[in-house]
Amino acid sequence: MEKSRRELNRRQFLKKTAGGVASLTLLGSLPTRVWGAPKRLPNFVFILIDDLGWRDLSCYGSTLYETPAIDELAQQGVLFRQAYASFPRCVPSRYSIMTGKYPARYGVPGLHSDLPAEEFTVAEALKQAGYATFFAGKWHLAKENDPEYPYPDKQGFDVNIGGSSAGSVVSHFFPYGGVKKTLRGKKRVIKLPGLEKGKPGEYLTDRLTDATVKFIRQHRDKPFFVYLSHYAVHVPLQAKKPYVDRYVHKLELLPKPSWPPYIREGVGWTKMLQDNPVYAGMIQSVDDSVARIMQTLRELGLENNTIIIFTSDNGGLSTRGTRAYKGKHALATSNFPLRAGKGWCYEGGIRVPLIVKWPGVTKPGTDTDAIVLGADFYPTILQMAGLPLIPKQHLDGISFVPVLRGEEATARHVAFWHSPVGRPWSTGDENASVIRVDDYKLIDWYDKGKLELYNLDMDPGERIDLSDSMPEKRDELYRKLKAWRKEVGAYMAKGKAGKRKKRRAE
Amino acid sequence: MEKSRRELNRRQFLKKTAGGVASLTLLGSLPTRVWGAPKRLPNFVFILIDDLGWRDLSCYGSTLYETPAIDELAQQGVLFRQAYASFPRCVPSRYSIMTGKYPARYGVPGLHSDLPAEEFTVAEALKQAGYATFFAGKWHLAKENDPEYPYPDKQGFDVNIGGSSAGSVVSHFFPYGGVKKTLRGKKRVIKLPGLEKGKPGEYLTDRLTDATVKFIRQHRDKPFFVYLSHYAVHVPLQAKKPYVDRYVHKLELLPKPSWPPYIREGVGWTKMLQDNPVYAGMIQSVDDSVARIMQTLRELGLENNTIIIFTSDNGGLSTRGTRAYKGKHALATSNFPLRAGKGWCYEGGIRVPLIVKWPGVTKPGTDTDAIVLGADFYPTILQMAGLPLIPKQHLDGISFVPVLRGEEATARHVAFWHSPVGRPWSTGDENASVIRVDDYKLIDWYDKGKLELYNLDMDPGERIDLSDSMPEKRDELYRKLKAWRKEVGAYMAKGKAGKRKKRRAE
Repeated sequence: MEKSRRELNRRQFLKKTAGGVASLTLLGSLPTRVWGAPKRLPNFVFILIDDLGWRDLSCYGSTLYETPAIDELAQQGVLFRQAYASFPRCVPSRYSIMTGKYPARYGVPGLHSDLPAEEFTVAEALKQAGYATFFAGKWHLAKENDPEYPYPDKQGFDVNIGGSSAGSVVSHFFPYGGVKKTLRGKKRVIKLPGLEKGKPGEYLTDRLTDATVKFIRQHRDKPFFVYLSHYAVHVPLQAKKPYVDRYVHKLELLPKPSWPPYIREGVGWTKMLQDNPVYAGMIQSVDDSVARIMQTLRELGLENNTIIIFTSDNGGLSTRGTRAYKGKHALATSNFPLRAGKGWCYEGGIRVPLIVKWPGVTKPGTDTDAIVLGADFYPTILQMAGLPLIPKQHLDGISFVPVLRGEEATARHVAFWHSPVGRPWSTGDENASVIRVDDYKLIDWYDKGKLELYNLDMDPGERIDLSDSMPEKRDELYRKLKAWRKEVGAYMAKGKAGKRKKRRAE
Repeated sequence: MEKSRRELNRRQFLKKTAGGVASLTLLGSLPTRVWGAPKRLPNFVFILIDDLGWRDLSCYGSTLYETPAIDELAQQGVLFRQAYASFPRCVPSRYSIMTGKYPARYGVPGLHSDLPAEEFTVAEALKQAGYATFFAGKWHLAKENDPEYPYPDKQGFDVNIGGSSAGSVVSHFFPYGGVKKTLRGKKRVIKLPGLEKGKPGEYLTDRLTDATVKFIRQHRDKPFFVYLSHYAVHVPLQAKKPYVDRYVHKLELLPKPSWPPYIREGVGWTKMLQDNPVYAGMIQSVDDSVARIMQTLRELGLENNTIIIFTSDNGGLSTRGTRAYKGKHALATSNFPLRAGKGWCYEGGIRVPLIVKWPGVTKPGTDTDAIVLGADFYPTILQMAGLPLIPKQHLDGISFVPVLRGEEATARHVAFWHSPVGRPWSTGDENASVIRVDDYKLIDWYDKGKLELYNLDMDPGERIDLSDSMPEKRDELYRKLKAWRKEVGAYMAKGKAGKRKKRRAE
């Protein structure tokens, strides 16, 4: 703990200096001032879907789910084929988006499980630059009643609707909060600030969209940063009945594949088919949300000055482990041909949809294979706004503005993942670290002492283990991975799950 | 040997009765006679390439090789995506084409290694029906000076140019025959009847095409069956210099993939890239051959009355084993995304290109996923000619005429392969039997007691072994495979390679 406390102190220092530097340099360095013309800062609508898988949109190849509005957004912007969450689960992935850092640098998960107040978030940076900032939906980075790990309104957002310590709702229909039973039978009270009142039958995705549309209308005349963090499409799987009926019917009409519904994956199973009509209905409501936001921007004449970013926090929920297998764990979707899903460091767990529309910059209807990471949003957003970067804060993020301008060669070449709190009983995954360098990806199942090496261009499904075929490449990447773990002080679990001795990588 | 001799006697019986039945029923049953109108029998040009891999044509996805004439043929006919050789090596595959039987039924390879005189071949059936029959190229189904295993001219072909006991030439440039050194250092004399004279520098693929074109011109007025069995693209890898230069240059311009050039496969390696300019040049000459034949048919006005069948006898040469690995074994191509290549029962060894143009019947520019096997050509050709089938001869073949008419649902659903003489030192493969039922394929590595189960629709690269995921499907297919081995009396090697005790499956 000694070291981790030092880490925090270093962060508190950074918080002050980084924030300070930002506010000092801000007015002097804005392009709007430098070039004289009072150009308005662009608005941002950042839409984060919870657990949306890489193949969960029709523009990403789903034949079941229908997402016309999101497909239209892709037609207006750039679709990323190799965008990644910084972690295969909610909390660390969201920590990374807010901070621009690898989760492993803070020891989340393992040593920590929330976002400390002293981090200088992307929302704080934008707020300092004069943005009206709005948060709605799932936060999951707070401890209740603990100012050290506050709600979004203490992390840079003027407005917080629904963001709390909750990782999911009790119900997607009103009332959304209340008492929740966990898989292990414990009871937990879910409180969602600002969502306490509502109409019976009201659907949360619609409600959050209502609030977002209202905020945009109210702030049409000043730059805004909207962070719409849907609780959908996370469990519990619940959708509006007409949508469910629609997909029940569609499933009857779609050709039946000869594929097996599940295949073995580690200690558990992976779902191989997108065949859940309720999940399809949830995605349809998410698409409605995007449609309404795009329509609102058009109506307000903000279409050409608003950047829209649409993404997910990790792969789709498609695997189950030892305990979850006994019928307790409803599986939502399939990320196939990517391997496995949420929780895993295989591509199914970390690769996510990402669509960016930057009017006047991104070439409509294009796609890219550039590697992009959740930690990259922070510096990218600052650069898109013409704001100065804060490298001491978003330590691991790399702005992908050049990629958005069509310069794919400038993209990120190296990315790391570190998952030290595997959940073999839940999603079936085990502890692993990963390095990707261009098309090569090394997975270190360090509890087992097993390395796997894949070439993602040749084999995006990660089925052809090259660790014996290319021992030099394997060893080179392994050295780099170990050096990175040491650099960030990655938390390394030791011993069996539940009986771990906490320690940092040395 | 007792049993195998009984087999031969049964065959001699079949030979007489089958041939007799065919000749007796022929005149009475031809549609030409039944319907009164003297409709001319269709001509056949059957083009068999040696070792051409499934991805060795641009219409099958190669980005290196250029095959405009074959692509045009595909545009005029039907392209089969799931056509198979009956065996992953030359001799048994060719035996199956000539006889319409599974190689395992005759114990080839293992108990036998050639085509006995008493088999009633597809060429004999056509010759009896009045066809002028022509063979040019590689036969490899004969023993020299042994009337029991004769050359093509005693197996139903009026003409034989180049067909002998040879499985490959000494050189693809004249003189083609002569003394050949085997991999193990032995010397063997290669004799090629009808190819003894030639011009220095002459290229065999061109020479065989010359002879074919000449035969077609001479027989324009009567139905002909041309069986052009190129020695290309089998080793030795040799191409015309301008073609090699062309592909050397093209390779410099093509984007370099990040893929590894080889990956481990069993005891050896699989080539992962199509990057051999000499092999590309050989394919170019094969394409020239097809272009000249198509042009000749056009010139003679035979285009609309000639069925063209273009295929290969096994997968591309892309693997090497224990001994071959030490630099002695030049690898030609890659069948990736299919797994492995020639010699293996993985798809890379058995799946082959197949294009069929049947003027007035096949819908131009279409493709099909129907399962077709080398043994199926015999009854298919008879039915296309309107001749009566000879079920006692082509025991295992199923006519795919309905597929050619566009009725894919009528296709073959079950196919077997049995490879009891693996070559771990050469192409790296080991003894295996296979059953495919619709999209499921079970491989029995019976020497190792290991089963693998794949779903080829989901996973054509055979990387996701479902044998643990779907034990019931695995067991069901295994029962069927064992029953088939017993039915055909499959030769099962026992003990280590080289010290095998020969026996039939019981």
